[in-house]
Amino acid sequence: MHRYSIGILGASGYAGRELAALVTRHPALALAFAAADSRRGETAELGGRAVTFGALEDAPLANADLIFSALPHGASAPWVHAARAGGAKVVDLSADLRPGRSPAPAGVPYGLPEIARDAVRGADVVANPGCYATAAILALAPLAASGLIAPGATITINAASGVTGAGAAPRRDLLFGEVAEDFRAYALGNSHRHGAEIGAVLATLGSDADLVFTPHLLPVARGILATILVPVTELPADPLALWRARYGAEPFIEITTEAPTLRDVVRRNVFRLTARPVAGVRRPMLQIIAAIDNLMKGAAGQAMQNANLLLGLEETMGLPA
Amino acid sequence: MHRYSIGILGASGYAGRELAALVTRHPALALAFAAADSRRGETAELGGRAVTFGALEDAPLANADLIFSALPHGASAPWVHAARAGGAKVVDLSADLRPGRSPAPAGVPYGLPEIARDAVRGADVVANPGCYATAAILALAPLAASGLIAPGATITINAASGVTGAGAAPRRDLLFGEVAEDFRAYALGNSHRHGAEIGAVLATLGSDADLVFTPHLLPVARGILATILVPVTELPADPLALWRARYGAEPFIEITTEAPTLRDVVRRNVFRLTARPVAGVRRPMLQIIAAIDNLMKGAAGQAMQNANLLLGLEETMGLPA
Amino acid sequence: MHRYSIGILGASGYAGRELAALVTRHPALALAFAAADSRRGETAELGGRAVTFGALEDAPLANADLIFSALPHGASAPWVHAARAGGAKVVDLSADLRPGRSPAPAGVPYGLPEIARDAVRGADVVANPGCYATAAILALAPLAASGLIAPGATITINAASGVTGAGAAPRRDLLFGEVAEDFRAYALGNSHRHGAEIGAVLATLGSDADLVFTPHLLPVARGILATILVPVTELPADPLALWRARYGAEPFIEITTEAPTLRDVVRRNVFRLTARPVAGVRRPMLQIIAAIDNLMKGAAGQAMQNANLLLGLEETMGLPA
Amino acid sequence: MHRYSIGILGASGYAGRELAALVTRHPALALAFAAADSRRGETAELGGRAVTFGALEDAPLANADLIFSALPHGASAPWVHAARAGGAKVVDLSADLRPGRSPAPAGVPYGLPEIARDAVRGADVVANPGCYATAAILALAPLAASGLIAPGATITINAASGVTGAGAAPRRDLLFGEVAEDFRAYALGNSHRHGAEIGAVLATLGSDADLVFTPHLLPVARGILATILVPVTELPADPLALWRARYGAEPFIEITTEAPTLRDVVRRNVFRLTARPVAGVRRPMLQIIAAIDNLMKGAAGQAMQNANLLLGLEETMGLPA
Repeated sequence: MHRYSIGILGASGYAGRELAALVTRHPALALAFAAADSRRGETAELGGRAVTFGALEDAPLANADLIFSALPHGASAPWVHAARAGGAKVVDLSADLRPGRSPAPAGVPYGLPEIARDAVRGADVVANPGCYATAAILALAPLAASGLIAPGATITINAASGVTGAGAAPRRDLLFGEVAEDFRAYALGNSHRHGAEIGAVLATLGSDADLVFTPHLLPVARGILATILVPVTELPADPLALWRARYGAEPFIEITTEAPTLRDVVRRNVFRLTARPVAGVRRPMLQIIAAIDNLMKGAAGQAMQNANLLLGLEETMGLPA
Repeated sequence: MHRYSIGILGASGYAGRELAALVTRHPALALAFAAADSRRGETAELGGRAVTFGALEDAPLANADLIFSALPHGASAPWVHAARAGGAKVVDLSADLRPGRSPAPAGVPYGLPEIARDAVRGADVVANPGCYATAAILALAPLAASGLIAPGATITINAASGVTGAGAAPRRDLLFGEVAEDFRAYALGNSHRHGAEIGAVLATLGSDADLVFTPHLLPVARGILATILVPVTELPADPLALWRARYGAEPFIEITTEAPTLRDVVRRNVFRLTARPVAGVRRPMLQIIAAIDNLMKGAAGQAMQNANLLLGLEETMGLPA
Repeated sequence: MHRYSIGILGASGYAGRELAALVTRHPALALAFAAADSRRGETAELGGRAVTFGALEDAPLANADLIFSALPHGASAPWVHAARAGGAKVVDLSADLRPGRSPAPAGVPYGLPEIARDAVRGADVVANPGCYATAAILALAPLAASGLIAPGATITINAASGVTGAGAAPRRDLLFGEVAEDFRAYALGNSHRHGAEIGAVLATLGSDADLVFTPHLLPVARGILATILVPVTELPADPLALWRARYGAEPFIEITTEAPTLRDVVRRNVFRLTARPVAGVRRPMLQIIAAIDNLMKGAAGQAMQNANLLLGLEETMGLPA
Repeated sequence: MHRYSIGILGASGYAGRELAALVTRHPALALAFAAADSRRGETAELGGRAVTFGALEDAPLANADLIFSALPHGASAPWVHAARAGGAKVVDLSADLRPGRSPAPAGVPYGLPEIARDAVRGADVVANPGCYATAAILALAPLAASGLIAPGATITINAASGVTGAGAAPRRDLLFGEVAEDFRAYALGNSHRHGAEIGAVLATLGSDADLVFTPHLLPVARGILATILVPVTELPADPLALWRARYGAEPFIEITTEAPTLRDVVRRNVFRLTARPVAGVRRPMLQIIAAIDNLMKGAAGQAMQNANLLLGLEETMGLPA
């Protein structure tokens, strides 16, 4: 089989390493280079293969058919442009090209394939969604389009993420001795970047509800669980019908009657959801529990869906369900 | 110093053992017996002393000045009555005497000393609050009394607890192999007993807001973190002023500008809180983050506050801040 | 492709569930039944498929080409006989047919394929090795055969296992609240069953050294790390040469210069080892560090190697390296 | 009560913070300064008090009666000399003044009070033992003095430590995402500094046995468990008699028939041990299991024992058993 030549920028972080492992096992891709300034010259075992990290400035951008950028927010955009100038297609995992505090650049689709598959298929560059944003938007998109959200509603999104969501750069507050046996809320007062990203995307899908997004740090390595409350105009007879109708044919979405937990999704490229009516309140509300692996459906797995679409391959290729 | 004679029923669970350790170190209490049917005859090291568990039916109730019941919900009430009949004062850590799905028995105060200190002082029996309920009610009581909660508001309480909150009886879903690296929501749809308990108590304090309470199970041994959103009529100039005014003199309450985390409170009998205005929403809201140790301020430590009050001792005795 | 019909007895434990997942994904096997008395009637998602546990006594033994027994030690042997009587081949994961305190039954090979592949190939029943025993025997077999072990030597085996090694039956001492943040030695004084199993097998391979085996319980879900000290007659020039020579062609063995850790092996069917000379001692010694996943190479993965051999399939089938 | 003025150098690491908390609660000590270059200007809550870290070069050494140095190995010695020049007594928690690869400086006792109490009492500077070394030496000292160790024996010391033993400086390999669910051996081939420290001290106590020391990193925050095998000339009738005779009056040593685990010792300044004869071997051996909290008896707690001795206070002051 023909193999497309793939480069990874920022390959030594958690998402970068996961990407390298996925590329290595992908039947139609070949890893051409893996750049990571902070670990240049080092070798890691990724996807069963030894991968040596090169310097960013030595990355042979022009040799690649497609480049994943897993560089830090703020540092990625210039490399995306350089990669495009060299002729490669690009999946950018940073926040640099996503909607949110500033509008997304024109012509760069938001790479949530279940929402914007056709736009991705026709693009050269894709902004890969944030991990929390993936969980929240996939949960809320069917509601946003349905008109069921109560006018003037405030949607509450509480989410908790494993530590790999914060990256692999050494930080004192992410040491095992600090995180173990702890649990913290952060970005208080609705100040997290992903809150704006979620709001901007939901607005394009028809919702003008206010959102309050509160992220938390879990003492686990991987996984995101989101607990969402949505005031609705009325309670549907089957609380799962909306999601089943919208996502029934999606290979990476699971709608369940039991509440999903991290164990259901970790190391898998899936989004899993349940929904319930809320008892004991005067106005109708739905409670949604959604789970993803922050490094898979929240980062590298979704990036691979996007790469497959950009290259004209089957979207599921290299992504065992 | 005179030492009051103390009995513990249900002494082998997590709260029971914590209580035994507190009693052992208390300058004015002496542990007369520790009953635990499931481990009768076994000896454990608690508070630096070897404690042997006796059978419940052999517990010399009449010998005790005060009895703590840490028996399971449903099993506790008859023993509370038996202990009272024997002349002992009682702190009941079960849900049997608390308000909630059924009204609390007359004359049994809800033992949250920061809310109902005087009622406890004059009583013979106290219903020790639930762990989640302690965190939520201490967080919301100043707001309930203030009139600041928006009329018709829905208050969202998301809380996550360490595993000891679920007790020490062997259960497959609480094995290390099941809980580690996982995170789960439970009691979906606002169905947890503590939700009703919180609502019933807040109603007595002046709030008629709807509550949606969602508990979660954390892969940590101890601690509860509650993330609470409250629609308010207007944002106060200083978001912490309300709590500082109400709790300024409380020895076991800490109001901080930084968000509390489990590490700030674990193994301590404190309730710790911060509050922030929520940005980016059309109607004013306050976000509250509150933390307690579920076994201390959420169970045994608070029970000791209550016991001290029942016995006419200093409320802080035996409870190092 | 023709699919062999497979039954699993004791399918709801950790090894049983792992087996069910492997069978489900295996290209030449089909899961005929999964029996588990303690969870009969319940359904679990294993290997991406819903599997419903049946009662043991209802298991249609005669319908299966091959049966895995993951029943508890002591309870397995009668079911192995019943399965054989029904005509099925059997891989027994319990200790019932292994050498150790009593001799192994005649004609039942010890299913460590890297040591006894040919014997397994010709058999109808195989005793699948214990998890600790797998790690220790694969580490020591090349030494036992080499004559390098010092005469009269005592070999020290310290090993630590994740909690799934102790099974999924509810036990108070295996609750998250007991295991987290703890670490324990157990089976003190060289009293663990696997010590005898290791000794009996190594004796057949040419070693008469004394062994002291001390197991420990780790606060992790999966994985075994063994730290082994072997007095030798002389230090080899290349400490890894012996293992590379013996295992060079083995698909599931990795010899590395870096010390393996649990992360290198978890969820993989591999045995990974390094060895080093010991400095600062008067008599020559080798230090070996070996790691496996207790549920894969230490249980279900190895059982699948054995099943493939019994059925005349490729040994690696259904076991991605 | 008169309070001695205390300074801490390197106060922001795990041992330094633990020391600051102990000093704050000590009835006869007052914290004069807490220096920590990497966090200068920051404030932390330690022992219930807000402590602000100053720069090392601004530390008013001459104002202190006693200084604890918890600076890194190699960086500590010059500051010990400067502190001594200013007139303060010093407890040095680094390896700089300990025996091991180089001899200890003359006149600086090795601060293991249970072994060298009188020497500490008369000194001005003390080398506080390493955490692993504390566990191993307290375990082996009674044997070394007894003549029971078999001539020419090799003693095997396997020990596992919580992550705080590696310090609080940010390191990629100590991130939660790297340590969780892992377990590693390190300093392979008997190359850890503490091995030499243990050997040097045991030699002074009468043992010329070879030692093989292998440290491991546990996914827990605190605690050390050591598993030790000692070939002996004969098995004593009571395996614990030797330790009970030697340590019976020690306030911080617990000899138990059950194997100690981390939970028995964490957050306590104790050394806890059991011993057992080894079955199934031809030559007599004792197995010892010993546990300490690496930050208490292995660092700050022991440092406080030493400080009390240097200042002429009760050795147990400020150290609740």
